[in-house]
Parts: sequence; C-alpha cells; structure tokens
Amino acid sequence: MEQKHTTITSIGEFALIDRIKEIVNVRVDDASLHDQLRLGISDDAAVYRPTPGKVQLLTTDAFIEGVHFDLLFTTFRHLGWKVMAASFSDIAAMGGAPRYAALTLSLPQKISIEMVEELYRGITFACKKYSCLVIGGDTTAASGNTMISATIIGEAVESNVIQRRGAKPGDYVCVTGHLGASLSGLKILLREKNRFAQAVDPSHFRAELEPYAPAIEKHLMPKPRLDISKILSEQVQIHAMIDISDGLASEVHHLCAYSGVGASIYEHNLPVESITQRIADEFSESPAHYALYGGEEYELLFTLTDEEFAKLDRLTNDVTIIGRITEKEKGIELVHENGEHEALPFGGWDHFSSR
Amino acid sequence: MEQKHTTITSIGEFALIDRIKEIVNVRVDDASLHDQLRLGISDDAAVYRPTPGKVQLLTTDAFIEGVHFDLLFTTFRHLGWKVMAASFSDIAAMGGAPRYAALTLSLPQKISIEMVEELYRGITFACKKYSCLVIGGDTTAASGNTMISATIIGEAVESNVIQRRGAKPGDYVCVTGHLGASLSGLKILLREKNRFAQAVDPSHFRAELEPYAPAIEKHLMPKPRLDISKILSEQVQIHAMIDISDGLASEVHHLCAYSGVGASIYEHNLPVESITQRIADEFSESPAHYALYGGEEYELLFTLTDEEFAKLDRLTNDVTIIGRITEKEKGIELVHENGEHEALPFGGWDHFSSR
Repeated sequence: MEQKHTTITSIGEFALIDRIKEIVNVRVDDASLHDQLRLGISDDAAVYRPTPGKVQLLTTDAFIEGVHFDLLFTTFRHLGWKVMAASFSDIAAMGGAPRYAALTLSLPQKISIEMVEELYRGITFACKKYSCLVIGGDTTAASGNTMISATIIGEAVESNVIQRRGAKPGDYVCVTGHLGASLSGLKILLREKNRFAQAVDPSHFRAELEPYAPAIEKHLMPKPRLDISKILSEQVQIHAMIDISDGLASEVHHLCAYSGVGASIYEHNLPVESITQRIADEFSESPAHYALYGGEEYELLFTLTDEEFAKLDRLTNDVTIIGRITEKEKGIELVHENGEHEALPFGGWDHFSSR
Repeated sequence: MEQKHTTITSIGEFALIDRIKEIVNVRVDDASLHDQLRLGISDDAAVYRPTPGKVQLLTTDAFIEGVHFDLLFTTFRHLGWKVMAASFSDIAAMGGAPRYAALTLSLPQKISIEMVEELYRGITFACKKYSCLVIGGDTTAASGNTMISATIIGEAVESNVIQRRGAKPGDYVCVTGHLGASLSGLKILLREKNRFAQAVDPSHFRAELEPYAPAIEKHLMPKPRLDISKILSEQVQIHAMIDISDGLASEVHHLCAYSGVGASIYEHNLPVESITQRIADEFSESPAHYALYGGEEYELLFTLTDEEFAKLDRLTNDVTIIGRITEKEKGIELVHENGEHEALPFGGWDHFSSR
C-alpha cells in the first residue's frame, strides 16, 4: 500500500491547521448550528450562542494508541469516526443532542499529514451524520503514542435530561440494539493480527475478515444511539440511563451505585446477534460473556416502569428488556435460564488495572 | 525528598476519580457558577445553564511532557496552575470570563496518585482564584509521556468579544505587563538542570534559584490577564486582541495576518523588567530578543485608536504602547532606537519545527 507520507515538520503547525479547517468545513442539516456559531477555528477561542431555554452538556473522552486503539488494524478514518461516536454516545446517554466539538491531538513523528487528514475525514463524516461542528482544538508534537481527545458540547431541554441516578425498584432494565458484537469483532481483528505476525510470507498474507464484517464494523464504526435517545428523552419517562462503553456488567454496577438500588439481569434475555454467536462458537467462548463484559458497544442502558415500557414498545423495536431493578439489599445478580443466580462481577474496563 | 508513591493501578480509575472530585470541590466567589451548574463530575456529561444574553467561549490546550514541560523542575502543583492559566489566557484574549473546565489526563505508570492529587491542587488553586469550576474530564493510562489537556468554557457579552481581526492602520499596538521574563526564568531553570547533571556529588547539589525568583515564578506560575481583559472588553473600544503564548513576534504576525495590516514595533519601547535584563546580561544575550521571541508570557497584545488609549491610560498603568499598525504593504517591521528598521522575523514557537 503506497501512500504519500508528508511529515508535519515539513509544513508546520499553522499550515496543518489550515488543512484541518478545510476538511471540517462542511454544512450540516441542522442550520441552527451554523447560525449560532459566531466564530469557529481561527481565534483564541470559539464563540457560539446557546439555544435559548436549553442547558449545555459537556463531555470529554481521550483515546490513546496502545490502550484504546491499535493502528495496525484501525485506519485513521475509522479512528476519527470512533472518537466522535464515543463522545456522541455520552451526549445520547444524557438525552441530549451534540452541537460543537473541539479536538486535541498529540502526534509522534511517525504520523504524517495524510494520516491527520484521514483522521479528520472520519471525524467530519461522523459530525455530518450526527449534526455537530468542529470549532476548535489543539495539535502538538508528542514523544510517545498518538493521543486524541474530544470535547463535545451538547444541548438538551433541562427537564428531559436523564441521569445515572433515579432507577427505582421494580423498573425494567433495558438496552438498545445488540450486545457483544464489538468485542467479537475485536477478537477477529486480534486473531488476524497474530496470524499476520506468524505468517511465513507476510507480503502475501490476506486477513480473513469478510465473513465477520458486521462484528468488525460494530467495533470500528460504532453508531451512537442518538436516534433512540431522542425518543427516550422526549416521549417516554426514563428513570436512569448510561451508555455502554466499558461493558454491560460494569455499567449496571455504575447505574445501581448512583441510584442506590440492586438489579437482577436475566442472562437468557441478553440480545446477541447471530454473528456474535458464531464468533463466540469459533473461540469456544460464551456469547453471554461477550455481552456482559465486552466494552465499546455504545448502546444505551436504561430503566423505566412497565407502563412507560408499554409506551416505548409502540415507538421502537430496537429495545430489549434484560432485567429488573431491585432493592439495594438484593445486590446485583445474574439470573440463569434455569433460575439459578449468582452475583454479577463488576468486570468491564478499568484503564489502570493490570492487563 | 521522601514522598508517598501510591500507584494508580493499586486503587483503580474509579477511586482516583473520587479523590479528584474531593479536591476540585471548592466554592468560588462567583455564586452564579454554582447555581447554574446542574450536574458536575459524576455522569456521562456535565450539565450547566448558560447565562442568559451571553455567548459561550470554548478553548482547548494540550500540555505534553518533554514538549511543554519538564518534570525535573516543574512540580505537579505548578503544572496544574500553568495549564489552567494558559487556557484562561485564551478566554481573556477574547474579552470573556472563564466558567467551567474539563481536563483530560493521560498518565504513564511512573505517575502516582499523590502526583495527580498535587496536579489537581494546582488546577483547583487557579480555578478558585479566577472563578472556574472543574466539571468533567477523562483519565487514562498512557504508554508514553504525561499529557494534560484542558477545555475551558467561558462567557462574554457578544458585543464585547474581541477578535484577532479588526486592527486598523494608525492603531496603537499595546501589551499588558512585561515581556521576556518567562523565557529568562526558563533559562535559569535549564542552567541549573545542567549544573545538576554535571554535579560531582548530586546529593549535595543545591540549585541557585532565589536571586531569580520573579522570573522563575513568571515561568512556572504565569497570571492570565483577566483583570485587564475585563477593562478592555467593557470600558474601552479595542480593535483586535490576542494573547502572547508563542512569543510577541509570532503573535504580532498572527494579529496582522488576520487583520490584513502591517505593523511597526519599536524595540526600545518593549517593556522589560530589571530581573529579565539581569538574566539576559548573565547569558550575554539581548533582553529585547527575550521580549520578542520568548513564549508562555500570557500577556495580552491589542490595538486601539489614540483616543481610546487615552481612556485606557486613566484606567490602568499596566499597559505599554509598543508600536503602530500600518498598511499591509509596509509589512511587519522592527524599528530600532536609532531609527533603523528591519523585517520582524516570525520567530516564536512551532510545535512541529525541528528543534
């Protein structure tokens, strides 16, 4: 794969910023964003008018090479998308809509202008799709690994904001979409990376990815659930919500801790797609385990009453009941199909745990 | 120097966040910040109400170990202060006031809990002084160098916002405070670092810093000029403004490029303190060179008419006229005391230039 490799040093920081400005300069569907933005990338700070009557949401997410992504199988375009998707997912989890973004990049010498441009194409692709404007950032040289940090400003009607606290005993526990696919896609990517490393003739190596495309896409290009979040915040009474970035089990623990409740999660209700089932079979692992402990799903986990669920059920098919909120004393348990139950381990992803 | 060293791994990401929350939880003078903050660090995103009638400002700054700071002579408390000061300075340069902050840290294994706490004490110290609340962030493990990125939300009355564009031929060019001190302080710190490296008995080495304290303080604990920015944005008509983070010469070039004008800078008018003069003498260097090309000053550079300057002159003594805006065709020139002049090199700090 021949690709142009222009060093950032050769054109300098300011020329790089000009190139970035050109890429991110797209028109989004929501014209109010353009109207309310008074000053984008160009000055000491960006300037925008908030929408009257709405509260502002602020979230920040960092992605580090070697911790959150592997440049061997993550293209810069995918990486740009994923950084934005992860941050948009935080806004979705509050019941809001993204508005503006600022990105901080720290780039080691190996990163070329072309790579940065690809990264920003992925960022812009996500911004265009979910109506967000890139209005600022900072780009610096680094001596270590590539790091990308995204800050997103979102907006919501204050009374529609959904917090992590608020779940009540008796609530249904629900998730959007399917679980476990992101981890199953990652497993395939890692397996092919190992096969490549062991290949006798790497120049003729061909990764076997096509049969697993839906799972790999879920891992590399996850979709933030702004679609369902809009329904949940505007048309249904939700008690508590969180997005699934570190794994379902870990998010259930967070939501319960903030709400001061327990939960029973029904293992046989976890929504798993056939591709995830197939990959788990190949690895002789349990798809329920992927669903419980796989991170980077960017689906939503939320709780609501039976009556509100009945309302929601008429608005979307993309939600599954996976359990019930219980009294705090009952703890957080996983219920198996045969009725047996056990404490649900926290699991999930701690960035500082020894791996 | 014995200090406790608890690894972050040993307590984990979530316990670390709890400790950070405790440190940043301070009351600031401006009660409206607390009233308008609906949700701080704790959920998928922070939530705040914007002040009615004001525009929002957004700025992001990244600080990388080995590029922006040297942990040998920068304490974590100083580092925390400086990161905030640099970001507040961007808000000052727009004529705004800081409101809320989110911080992203990426931390290699060598960084202990105690160091992170010290960093947040410095951050909180600056936030308390300049009325800003820490409301979010992300903390991740890194394989390379320590990286800190700050995002600041500020506010301003829209008609008071001061941009980089807008300077007009005939305007005075002014700066706040004094110039060159930050670089002169850094020179002393680097000299003592070298002396330490060459010391025969490092355990008995004592850095000679006291005589240079004001310059070193200017380097390690710069003060954002929110004081003068408030006067400039509310009581005087300013045409264009930028803060001096990369060096005066570089900022003059930026301001002129955005405004489509030229400038004459009078070398003999550059405000230099005696400590800077003394340090320049020790190194047999020119203090004017420090003033023109030293970065990290965080003073303000702005332009205004003679009439407006007369008004400003009655409001503060901390401003110096250093030149005049000219027609674009005249270019950007440095005028010496004897009347000779030459083109002013861009100079300054490009994070990707080879050093």
